[in-house]
Amino acid sequence: MINVLFAATEQRWTEYRAPLTEAFAARDLAVDLRTDFPPEAVDYIVYAPNSPVQDFTPYTRCKAVLNLWAGVEAIVGNQTLTRPLCRMVDHGLTRGMVEWVTGHALRHHLHIDHFLAHQDGDWDAAKLVPPLAEERPVTVLGLGELGAACAQALAQLGFPVTGWSRSPKDIEGLTCLSGPEGLAQALSTAQILVLLLPLTAETTDLMDATRLAQLPRGAVILNPGRGPLIVDEALLAALDAGHLRHATLDVFRTEPLPAAHPFWAHPQVTVCPHIASETRPLTASRIIAENVARGETGAPFLFLVDRSQGY
Amino acid sequence: MINVLFAATEQRWTEYRAPLTEAFAARDLAVDLRTDFPPEAVDYIVYAPNSPVQDFTPYTRCKAVLNLWAGVEAIVGNQTLTRPLCRMVDHGLTRGMVEWVTGHALRHHLHIDHFLAHQDGDWDAAKLVPPLAEERPVTVLGLGELGAACAQALAQLGFPVTGWSRSPKDIEGLTCLSGPEGLAQALSTAQILVLLLPLTAETTDLMDATRLAQLPRGAVILNPGRGPLIVDEALLAALDAGHLRHATLDVFRTEPLPAAHPFWAHPQVTVCPHIASETRPLTASRIIAENVARGETGAPFLFLVDRSQGY
Repeated sequence: MINVLFAATEQRWTEYRAPLTEAFAARDLAVDLRTDFPPEAVDYIVYAPNSPVQDFTPYTRCKAVLNLWAGVEAIVGNQTLTRPLCRMVDHGLTRGMVEWVTGHALRHHLHIDHFLAHQDGDWDAAKLVPPLAEERPVTVLGLGELGAACAQALAQLGFPVTGWSRSPKDIEGLTCLSGPEGLAQALSTAQILVLLLPLTAETTDLMDATRLAQLPRGAVILNPGRGPLIVDEALLAALDAGHLRHATLDVFRTEPLPAAHPFWAHPQVTVCPHIASETRPLTASRIIAENVARGETGAPFLFLVDRSQGY
Repeated sequence: MINVLFAATEQRWTEYRAPLTEAFAARDLAVDLRTDFPPEAVDYIVYAPNSPVQDFTPYTRCKAVLNLWAGVEAIVGNQTLTRPLCRMVDHGLTRGMVEWVTGHALRHHLHIDHFLAHQDGDWDAAKLVPPLAEERPVTVLGLGELGAACAQALAQLGFPVTGWSRSPKDIEGLTCLSGPEGLAQALSTAQILVLLLPLTAETTDLMDATRLAQLPRGAVILNPGRGPLIVDEALLAALDAGHLRHATLDVFRTEPLPAAHPFWAHPQVTVCPHIASETRPLTASRIIAENVARGETGAPFLFLVDRSQGY
């Protein structure tokens, strides 16, 4: 019997118990799945933020910690964790993110808000013909699973897409840049900027006043990545100064975003309550089962985190 | 010298004079392009609605009438026109339409209007996670250049797409239906319905109360095609009854849409002032030049209209 500890909130247990049980059965894995075990009996830990497990020291026989989410910043710095850590790369998560990013990029590209604000009977005042996507350069910061998929979907719609990542990449259909000089260049052409970087010491506060000023006048920012990638006060100042046209944000330094935060009331900010994409229990459970099967046969884990890089 | 008569409005002349001249020169065509000729001297007529030319009888040597727009309903029934008539199929027109249709389909799929209406600080009230596109069937009526391109772009984003056309078609990635029984089936699954049919006697009033009732409850309609495809009163009744969720309309029976028309004020209707896509002078001029070159060498014209079908 393989003992799998589900170490996340009650709500997640409600969502994941049935699909995980089904996914283990589909792989013929004899799993005992529980929210409570003696620590020394646990073979695998399924983990999500706000987990009851914060100290991994007593889990002496644990073969891997399997993160339910794509982002691992809540656990990657935990010094008590010495076992392999795997991120989630979920088909549903990726597709949901592509849809959100593409939808909001097109919303701003087509000036849909303008039409929604001109439903007053004045045909000529409403008239506004956007340029073609091929005349609207887009930049995606971060070319991991999510960033690369979003960048490619935008390129397929005709946008000229620049992708930027820390280390050099080469992805078909994109202009790929990297490193500090690459970043300045990637920002300088971005009429729409999409933030899909992992949260690390290097990416925290990345979009500060200096880097926001490198964007062309009238640029739009989409942040479905992580809240601390942006310095809130610098973003508000750039919007108020007319340098940026709009920011559509799905993630924040504090979530839920406090009701008094100026983002809520700002006319050029759209707040989404962290819904851009969610791991989907059905598809994510299959990834967890796959990694347990790999652990049992000694095959390499999928989506193993490089803890020196932080993602 | 080839005499090309530009028979459209003054405004179009301003937009098209330079790009047409350039496109003819790029093909080494010795063209005299004017808005006025003795009718019997004219070799080709470039035509758009509200043209000064309504009687084609005196244009005895004219080899073809080249329509600047995709839709030919303003000219196809003209009994004085006995020369070949060509539609416009413009790269810019197609791409613009794909962007508009994809953008508004995603807007409704992602419930973007809901988030725009929940910017009041209440995180939980704003929370709404849409399904994945793969769980949202879309139907496109009309599989011409525009309909097929839109249907394929939506399919690439993950939507299960059904395309319907009068005659049977087979297009990769789509479920293709045709004929009257096919129409009922295509409507029955359409959570988002896109109208891109040509306007003919058969398609006028197509979406009447009966066919609107065949859509699933909560369906959304996008009409960037032609206004008379929909019976306005039937659409309003279906929205008011809660059968349909929303209609985003770019075309109307009367344009500009009169300020008193109930579409403007209806909370479930978005009026766009016929901007979904426009023929772009630069790319369209190249198509006109290509057809003049074909006429001069006796090669078959591009996009020749079958007047028995009306498109």
